[in-house]
Amino acid sequence: MTKRHNGAFEGSSVLITGGLGFIGSNLAIRLVELGAEVTIVDNMLPEHGGNEFNIEQVIDRAEVDISDIRDAESMNYRVQGKDFVFHLAGQNDHIRNFTDPYLDVDINVRGTVVLLEACRHHNPDARVIYTGTRGEYGAVEKVPVAEDTRTNPKGLYELTSLTAGRACAIYHENHGVRSMTLRLTNVYGERSQMRHARFGVANWFIRLAIDDEPIKIFGTGTIKRDFLYIDDCVDAMLAAAATDEAYGEVFNVGNDTPSNFLEFANVTIDVAGSGSLEMVEFTPERAAQEPGDYYSDISKISRTVGWRPQTSLTDGIQRTIEFYRANKRHYW
Amino acid sequence: MTKRHNGAFEGSSVLITGGLGFIGSNLAIRLVELGAEVTIVDNMLPEHGGNEFNIEQVIDRAEVDISDIRDAESMNYRVQGKDFVFHLAGQNDHIRNFTDPYLDVDINVRGTVVLLEACRHHNPDARVIYTGTRGEYGAVEKVPVAEDTRTNPKGLYELTSLTAGRACAIYHENHGVRSMTLRLTNVYGERSQMRHARFGVANWFIRLAIDDEPIKIFGTGTIKRDFLYIDDCVDAMLAAAATDEAYGEVFNVGNDTPSNFLEFANVTIDVAGSGSLEMVEFTPERAAQEPGDYYSDISKISRTVGWRPQTSLTDGIQRTIEFYRANKRHYW
Repeated sequence: MTKRHNGAFEGSSVLITGGLGFIGSNLAIRLVELGAEVTIVDNMLPEHGGNEFNIEQVIDRAEVDISDIRDAESMNYRVQGKDFVFHLAGQNDHIRNFTDPYLDVDINVRGTVVLLEACRHHNPDARVIYTGTRGEYGAVEKVPVAEDTRTNPKGLYELTSLTAGRACAIYHENHGVRSMTLRLTNVYGERSQMRHARFGVANWFIRLAIDDEPIKIFGTGTIKRDFLYIDDCVDAMLAAAATDEAYGEVFNVGNDTPSNFLEFANVTIDVAGSGSLEMVEFTPERAAQEPGDYYSDISKISRTVGWRPQTSLTDGIQRTIEFYRANKRHYW
Repeated sequence: MTKRHNGAFEGSSVLITGGLGFIGSNLAIRLVELGAEVTIVDNMLPEHGGNEFNIEQVIDRAEVDISDIRDAESMNYRVQGKDFVFHLAGQNDHIRNFTDPYLDVDINVRGTVVLLEACRHHNPDARVIYTGTRGEYGAVEKVPVAEDTRTNPKGLYELTSLTAGRACAIYHENHGVRSMTLRLTNVYGERSQMRHARFGVANWFIRLAIDDEPIKIFGTGTIKRDFLYIDDCVDAMLAAAATDEAYGEVFNVGNDTPSNFLEFANVTIDVAGSGSLEMVEFTPERAAQEPGDYYSDISKISRTVGWRPQTSLTDGIQRTIEFYRANKRHYW
């Protein structure tokens, strides 16, 4: 495990937006365990990842606001005195924007600017860690994908996520609010929402296996992806946040040991001892949307921050399955 | 003059957002003269370019709504039946966003999405011509600057302008609303607002000369810029709009015969027969903000659309000075 952040968070004051969601709640738990004072802001947007059960084990040691990053008064107050602001709140359903594009614009762009203005005027010493998405790169010409790859967002979710990160960079440059962007890849693990597959298929495969249902694999299933286990993702966020030289930068947080959908499904079925494979042809529509191989070049974060993922696919999937088997009723 | 658009607009129905402003009003006048039915939408945002006098010569032949692109009901109605939507409305004060960033986000990003949704649901056959800014490229490493140069917006105005153009591209790609982006350079000429220099210095130099005041030139004044006369800009917009292959693309609309600030000021003083030069040192703050040489590579629009600027600096400045001398009371 990356250890460079030891001590950076003990006694520190931390705000996590979207802190009841998948990544935010895992981060919150870890920070509480490291001795940080954690405040969570989450608007519990329907269909998104917010789930109070996610933070059950630290509920007595963290403060929770059901509040929205679009609410300037709330943010102006909540950023005060914080050493770190992990900004994970976002509309991150990449299908929903086809029917309602305004949540993407209002939450991802305006909400991020509200948060940045709050820091600028009420806590310019805050360090902001913004999490973007690999989707900001769009379909890529070569893998692994480094941070200087041309961005080419394919939908409003990806576009507004990119814009939010660039707004963070502008506040870093022009208004002295230190910030960085971490572009996350396919993260899987405990505390994700499990009701639908619209935030990514990895956790959905795990649900299907637990429910002993068939996992559909399109084509040969050999398209490459870098699946990242949640604990590794949290490690990366903490290590980056604790590294002064990381501010003002963009980092990929992914896995340079790529896997593919077939392998992920096979390991899941194997570990679960249930579920099955169902190989199906690509529909023309799905084939058109499929952007092809993707995995991250993580040499920049590795070099600057000293982080690399540590968890094997088998271990990550095993821990995830154990968690959801024990807590299934809270997730689906 | 570029002639390829002859006939494309006669009898066509055209919506111009921001149509009472500098570029929009010149475009409106030209389209009316070409026989188009023109509807103008403008919210008359204070400090911006909206000016009813701008369209005085066609006021009986164009329809004007004082309405806002953020108003979905208004846009849903106004796009109906239109063949072309020239989308020029925007918060384009690159200083104001330092104190109020929300206009940039709300008008440039949300407003553009409102307009695109209106087209998607109420007139999917509309062709949308969006005007962005060279500021989307930020400071560049080499000139001339082609469209594939990495975007690097330095402020929220430039960022939200870029995001609006990318939203247009996404609707083109995903929702069948044909669109293109024209990235405009330093446009000068008749019907610009002349009350402040925050939308660019070229027209401001002209005002100073007319008022027989000193024109401040920082440093040696030899930093390159491509000044583009308004009539050439309007030509480019019409020629591009009339070219089917231009949709889905981004084009620079600039001048590949660059000039510099000193030359622009000298020609202006010369043509006006008034005003004077005042050479001053760069302040450290201004030097830090100065992005260096910029001029556009316009080979793409020249190749695809057949447009090139036709007006010399002297001719453009002459016509501009004549207009403002005759109509000064409507502008400052």
